[in-house]
Amino acid sequence: MVKEVNGMTLKAIGVVRNEIKQPSMFDSEEVVSEIVIDTNLTESLDNLDEFSHIIVLYWIHKATGQSPIKVHPMGKHNLPLKGVFATRSPNRPNPVGKATVRLLERQGNILKVKGLDAIDGSPVIDIKPYLPGYDSVARAKVPPWVSQR
Amino acid sequence: MVKEVNGMTLKAIGVVRNEIKQPSMFDSEEVVSEIVIDTNLTESLDNLDEFSHIIVLYWIHKATGQSPIKVHPMGKHNLPLKGVFATRSPNRPNPVGKATVRLLERQGNILKVKGLDAIDGSPVIDIKPYLPGYDSVARAKVPPWVSQR
Repeated sequence: MVKEVNGMTLKAIGVVRNEIKQPSMFDSEEVVSEIVIDTNLTESLDNLDEFSHIIVLYWIHKATGQSPIKVHPMGKHNLPLKGVFATRSPNRPNPVGKATVRLLERQGNILKVKGLDAIDGSPVIDIKPYLPGYDSVARAKVPPWVSQR
Repeated sequence: MVKEVNGMTLKAIGVVRNEIKQPSMFDSEEVVSEIVIDTNLTESLDNLDEFSHIIVLYWIHKATGQSPIKVHPMGKHNLPLKGVFATRSPNRPNPVGKATVRLLERQGNILKVKGLDAIDGSPVIDIKPYLPGYDSVARAKVPPWVSQR
Protein backbone atom coordinates (compact mmCIF):
# COMPACT_ATOMS: atom_id res chain seq x y z
CA MET A 1 0.00 0.00 0.00
CA VAL A 2 3.00 2.32 0.11
CA LYS A 3 2.31 3.65 -3.33
CA GLU A 4 2.13 6.73 -5.41
CA VAL A 5 -1.43 7.95 -5.48
CA ASN A 6 -2.18 9.90 -8.66
CA GLY A 7 -1.46 13.56 -8.29
CA MET A 8 0.37 13.48 -4.96
CA THR A 9 3.16 15.58 -6.39
CA LEU A 10 4.26 18.67 -4.53
CA LYS A 11 5.09 22.05 -6.00
CA ALA A 12 7.71 24.23 -4.34
CA ILE A 13 5.90 27.40 -3.30
CA GLY A 14 9.16 28.93 -2.12
CA VAL A 15 12.59 28.28 -0.71
CA VAL A 16 14.41 28.65 2.62
CA ARG A 17 17.38 30.99 2.83
CA ASN A 18 19.62 30.90 5.89
CA GLU A 19 23.15 30.23 7.09
CA ILE A 20 22.75 26.50 7.65
CA LYS A 21 24.31 24.94 4.58
CA GLN A 22 24.70 21.32 5.60
CA PRO A 23 22.33 18.89 7.32
CA SER A 24 23.39 18.22 10.89
CA MET A 25 21.91 18.27 14.36
CA PHE A 26 21.78 21.98 15.02
CA ASP A 27 19.94 24.11 17.51
CA SER A 28 17.57 26.07 15.33
CA GLU A 29 16.01 28.11 18.11
CA GLU A 30 17.99 31.27 17.37
CA VAL A 31 18.37 30.79 13.62
CA VAL A 32 16.78 33.54 11.54
CA SER A 33 15.70 32.46 8.05
CA GLU A 34 14.06 34.04 5.09
CA ILE A 35 11.35 32.16 3.31
CA VAL A 36 11.22 33.47 -0.24
CA ILE A 37 7.80 32.74 -1.69
CA ASP A 38 7.00 32.61 -5.40
CA THR A 39 6.01 36.11 -6.44
CA ASN A 40 2.86 34.71 -8.06
CA LEU A 41 1.72 33.87 -4.54
CA THR A 42 2.66 37.11 -2.81
CA GLU A 43 -0.95 38.12 -2.15
CA SER A 44 -1.68 34.70 -0.68
CA LEU A 45 0.53 35.84 2.20
CA ASP A 46 -1.75 38.78 3.02
CA ASN A 47 -2.98 38.78 6.63
CA LEU A 48 -0.38 36.20 7.67
CA ASP A 49 1.49 38.82 9.69
CA GLU A 50 -1.54 39.17 11.95
CA PHE A 51 -0.29 35.92 13.48
CA SER A 52 2.77 35.76 15.73
CA HIS A 53 3.66 32.19 14.72
CA ILE A 54 3.33 30.10 11.61
CA ILE A 55 3.69 26.47 10.62
CA VAL A 56 6.10 25.70 7.81
CA LEU A 57 6.00 22.45 5.86
CA TYR A 58 9.13 21.87 3.83
CA TRP A 59 10.82 19.21 1.80
CA ILE A 60 13.91 17.74 3.49
CA HIS A 61 15.87 17.78 0.25
CA LYS A 62 19.11 16.58 1.84
CA ALA A 63 17.54 13.51 3.43
CA THR A 64 19.45 10.37 2.53
CA GLY A 65 16.64 8.90 0.45
CA GLN A 66 16.80 5.85 2.69
CA SER A 67 14.04 5.38 5.21
CA PRO A 68 15.03 2.89 7.88
CA ILE A 69 12.26 1.15 9.80
CA LYS A 70 13.95 2.06 13.11
CA VAL A 71 16.40 4.78 14.03
CA HIS A 72 18.39 6.01 17.00
CA PRO A 73 16.44 9.06 18.18
CA MET A 74 18.21 12.37 17.50
CA GLY A 75 21.10 10.36 16.05
CA LYS A 76 22.14 9.33 19.56
CA HIS A 77 23.62 5.89 19.26
CA ASN A 78 23.50 5.35 22.99
CA LEU A 79 19.70 5.38 22.76
CA PRO A 80 17.95 2.16 21.68
CA LEU A 81 16.36 2.00 18.23
CA LYS A 82 12.82 3.37 17.96
CA GLY A 83 10.24 3.14 15.18
CA VAL A 84 10.94 5.96 12.74
CA PHE A 85 7.40 7.36 13.14
CA ALA A 86 8.06 7.74 16.88
CA THR A 87 10.92 10.10 16.02
CA ARG A 88 11.44 13.30 14.03
CA SER A 89 14.22 11.75 11.96
CA PRO A 90 14.54 13.41 8.53
CA ASN A 91 14.95 10.00 6.92
CA ARG A 92 11.29 8.92 6.71
CA PRO A 93 9.09 7.54 3.91
CA ASN A 94 8.04 11.06 2.92
CA PRO A 95 10.77 13.54 3.91
CA VAL A 96 8.44 16.36 4.89
CA GLY A 97 9.45 18.55 7.81
CA LYS A 98 7.05 20.51 9.98
CA ALA A 99 8.24 23.46 12.03
CA THR A 100 6.41 25.99 14.18
CA VAL A 101 8.27 29.28 14.00
CA ARG A 102 8.02 32.86 15.03
CA LEU A 103 7.08 35.23 12.21
CA LEU A 104 9.31 38.26 12.66
CA GLU A 105 8.30 40.16 9.55
CA ARG A 106 6.65 39.90 6.18
CA GLN A 107 7.94 42.05 3.36
CA GLY A 108 6.09 41.35 0.13
CA ASN A 109 6.92 37.78 -0.82
CA ILE A 110 9.52 37.32 1.90
CA LEU A 111 8.86 35.98 5.38
CA LYS A 112 11.51 36.48 8.03
CA VAL A 113 11.18 33.77 10.68
CA LYS A 114 13.02 32.59 13.77
CA GLY A 115 13.48 28.98 14.83
CA LEU A 116 13.17 27.16 11.52
CA ASP A 117 15.12 23.89 11.46
CA ALA A 118 15.30 23.64 7.67
CA ILE A 119 18.60 24.16 5.93
CA ASP A 120 19.37 26.65 3.16
CA GLY A 121 17.74 25.71 -0.13
CA SER A 122 14.93 23.60 1.33
CA PRO A 123 11.84 23.76 -0.89
CA VAL A 124 8.83 25.11 1.00
CA ILE A 125 5.58 23.20 0.57
CA ASP A 126 3.07 25.07 2.70
CA ILE A 127 2.63 27.92 5.15
CA LYS A 128 -0.18 27.81 7.70
CA PRO A 129 -1.11 30.10 10.57
CA TYR A 130 -0.44 28.62 14.02
CA LEU A 131 -3.72 28.29 15.90
CA PRO A 132 -3.11 27.58 19.60
CA GLY A 133 -6.46 25.89 20.20
CA TYR A 134 -5.97 23.60 17.26
CA ASP A 135 -2.23 23.04 17.09
CA SER A 136 -1.29 22.73 20.73
CA VAL A 137 -2.19 20.29 23.47
CA ALA A 138 -2.41 21.25 27.11
CA ARG A 139 -1.19 18.08 28.75
CA ALA A 140 0.74 15.91 26.34
CA LYS A 141 2.78 12.93 27.46
CA VAL A 142 6.15 12.03 26.00
CA PRO A 143 8.48 9.17 26.95
CA PRO A 144 11.60 9.94 29.05
CA TRP A 145 14.03 9.11 26.21
CA VAL A 146 12.91 12.22 24.33
CA SER A 147 14.84 14.42 26.75
CA GLN A 148 17.67 11.96 27.40
CA ARG A 149 21.22 12.90 26.50
CA MET B 1 9.16 29.38 -9.01
CA VAL B 2 6.02 27.38 -8.25
CA LYS B 3 7.39 24.29 -9.85
CA GLU B 4 7.79 20.60 -9.49
CA VAL B 5 11.15 19.89 -7.96
CA ASN B 6 12.47 16.49 -9.00
CA GLY B 7 11.37 13.76 -6.67
CA MET B 8 8.83 15.71 -4.63
CA THR B 9 6.29 12.96 -5.05
CA LEU B 10 4.52 11.59 -2.01
CA LYS B 11 3.79 7.97 -1.24
CA ALA B 12 0.68 7.05 0.73
CA ILE B 13 1.93 5.35 3.90
CA GLY B 14 -1.63 4.59 4.96
CA VAL B 15 -5.24 5.69 4.83
CA VAL B 16 -7.79 7.31 7.14
CA ARG B 17 -10.92 5.36 8.04
CA ASN B 18 -13.81 7.13 9.74
CA GLU B 19 -17.46 8.09 9.41
CA ILE B 20 -16.89 11.41 7.64
CA LYS B 21 -17.55 10.61 4.00
CA GLN B 22 -17.86 14.06 2.44
CA PRO B 23 -15.78 17.21 2.81
CA SER B 24 -17.58 19.86 4.84
CA MET B 25 -16.94 22.06 7.83
CA PHE B 26 -17.31 19.58 10.65
CA ASP B 27 -16.29 19.59 14.27
CA SER B 28 -13.64 16.91 14.37
CA GLU B 29 -12.94 17.15 18.07
CA GLU B 30 -14.93 14.04 19.01
CA VAL B 31 -14.40 12.08 15.80
CA VAL B 32 -12.60 8.77 16.29
CA SER B 33 -10.65 7.57 13.26
CA GLU B 34 -8.50 4.62 12.39
CA ILE B 35 -5.29 5.22 10.52
CA VAL B 36 -4.44 2.03 8.68
CA ILE B 37 -0.73 1.99 7.93
CA ASP B 38 0.92 -0.11 5.24
CA THR B 39 1.85 -3.42 6.86
CA ASN B 40 5.39 -3.05 5.50
CA LEU B 41 5.74 -0.14 7.91
CA THR B 42 4.15 -1.70 11.00
CA GLU B 43 7.41 -1.80 12.95
CA SER B 44 8.05 1.86 12.13
CA LEU B 45 5.15 2.55 14.49
CA ASP B 46 6.91 0.93 17.44
CA ASN B 47 7.27 3.27 20.46
CA LEU B 48 4.71 5.71 19.05
CA ASP B 49 2.21 4.74 21.73
CA GLU B 50 4.58 6.12 24.36
CA PHE B 51 3.29 9.51 23.22
CA SER B 52 -0.19 10.76 24.09
CA HIS B 53 -0.53 12.87 20.94
CA ILE B 54 0.70 12.61 17.39
CA ILE B 55 0.88 14.82 14.32
CA VAL B 56 -0.73 13.50 11.17
CA LEU B 57 0.10 14.85 7.73
CA TYR B 58 -2.43 13.81 5.12
CA TRP B 59 -3.37 14.52 1.54
CA ILE B 60 -6.63 16.45 1.21
CA HIS B 61 -7.78 14.26 -1.67
CA LYS B 62 -11.19 15.91 -1.97
CA ALA B 63 -9.78 19.43 -2.28
CA THR B 64 -11.15 21.18 -5.35
CA GLY B 65 -7.83 21.28 -7.15
CA GLN B 66 -8.26 25.04 -7.39
CA SER B 67 -6.14 27.18 -5.14
CA PRO B 68 -7.53 30.70 -4.87
CA ILE B 69 -5.14 33.47 -3.86
CA LYS B 70 -7.62 34.66 -1.20
CA VAL B 71 -10.46 32.89 0.60
CA HIS B 72 -13.16 33.61 3.11
CA PRO B 73 -11.80 32.09 6.34
CA MET B 74 -13.65 28.95 7.46
CA GLY B 75 -15.93 29.37 4.45
CA LYS B 76 -17.66 32.26 6.21
CA HIS B 77 -18.75 34.67 3.51
CA ASN B 78 -19.45 37.38 6.04
CA LEU B 79 -15.72 37.53 6.77
CA PRO B 80 -13.52 39.53 4.39
CA LEU B 81 -11.16 37.66 2.05
CA LYS B 82 -7.78 36.71 3.52
CA GLY B 83 -4.62 35.39 1.88
CA VAL B 84 -4.96 31.62 1.62
CA PHE B 85 -1.74 31.05 3.62
CA ALA B 86 -3.29 33.01 6.51
CA THR B 87 -6.05 30.38 6.65
CA ARG B 88 -6.33 26.63 6.99
CA SER B 89 -8.42 26.32 3.82
CA PRO B 90 -8.07 22.88 2.20
CA ASN B 91 -7.80 24.54 -1.21
CA ARG B 92 -4.14 25.56 -1.20
CA PRO B 93 -1.23 25.11 -3.63
CA ASN B 94 -0.26 21.83 -1.96
CA PRO B 95 -3.33 20.27 -0.33
CA VAL B 96 -1.54 18.84 2.69
CA GLY B 97 -3.40 18.81 6.01
CA LYS B 98 -1.74 18.83 9.40
CA ALA B 99 -3.61 17.67 12.49
CA THR B 100 -2.54 17.16 16.07
CA VAL B 101 -4.58 14.31 17.52
CA ARG B 102 -4.87 12.16 20.57
CA LEU B 103 -3.49 8.65 20.11
CA LEU B 104 -6.00 6.36 21.80
CA GLU B 105 -4.47 3.05 20.85
CA ARG B 106 -2.06 1.32 18.55
CA GLN B 107 -2.82 -2.20 17.45
CA GLY B 108 -0.22 -3.51 15.01
CA ASN B 109 -0.50 -1.35 11.90
CA ILE B 110 -3.62 0.47 13.07
CA LEU B 111 -3.68 3.71 15.03
CA LYS B 112 -6.91 4.74 16.69
CA VAL B 113 -6.99 8.52 17.11
CA LYS B 114 -9.39 11.19 18.29
CA GLY B 115 -9.80 14.63 16.75
CA LEU B 116 -8.57 14.06 13.20
CA ASP B 117 -10.18 16.43 10.68
CA ALA B 118 -9.44 14.26 7.65
CA ILE B 119 -12.28 12.52 5.88
CA ASP B 120 -12.58 8.82 5.13
CA GLY B 121 -10.15 7.66 2.48
CA SER B 122 -7.60 10.44 2.94
CA PRO B 123 -4.10 9.20 2.09
CA VAL B 124 -1.73 9.55 5.04
CA ILE B 125 1.69 11.04 4.31
CA ASP B 126 3.46 11.09 7.65
CA ILE B 127 3.07 10.40 11.34
CA LYS B 128 5.21 12.29 13.85
CA PRO B 129 5.25 12.34 17.65
CA TYR B 130 3.91 15.56 19.17
CA LEU B 131 6.67 17.23 21.17
CA PRO B 132 5.28 20.03 23.38
CA GLY B 133 8.52 22.01 23.58
CA TYR B 134 8.92 21.96 19.83
CA ASP B 135 5.38 21.97 18.47
CA SER B 136 3.65 24.38 20.81
CA VAL B 137 4.08 28.05 21.59
CA ALA B 138 3.37 29.55 24.97
CA ARG B 139 2.05 32.97 23.97
CA ALA B 140 0.92 33.02 20.37
CA LYS B 141 -1.07 35.88 18.90
CA VAL B 142 -3.92 35.41 16.46
CA PRO B 143 -6.17 38.04 14.89
CA PRO B 144 -9.73 38.47 16.21
CA TRP B 145 -11.36 37.19 12.99
CA VAL B 146 -10.09 33.68 13.75
CA SER B 147 -12.70 33.29 16.46
CA GLN B 148 -15.38 35.41 14.79
CA ARG B 149 -18.72 33.82 13.87
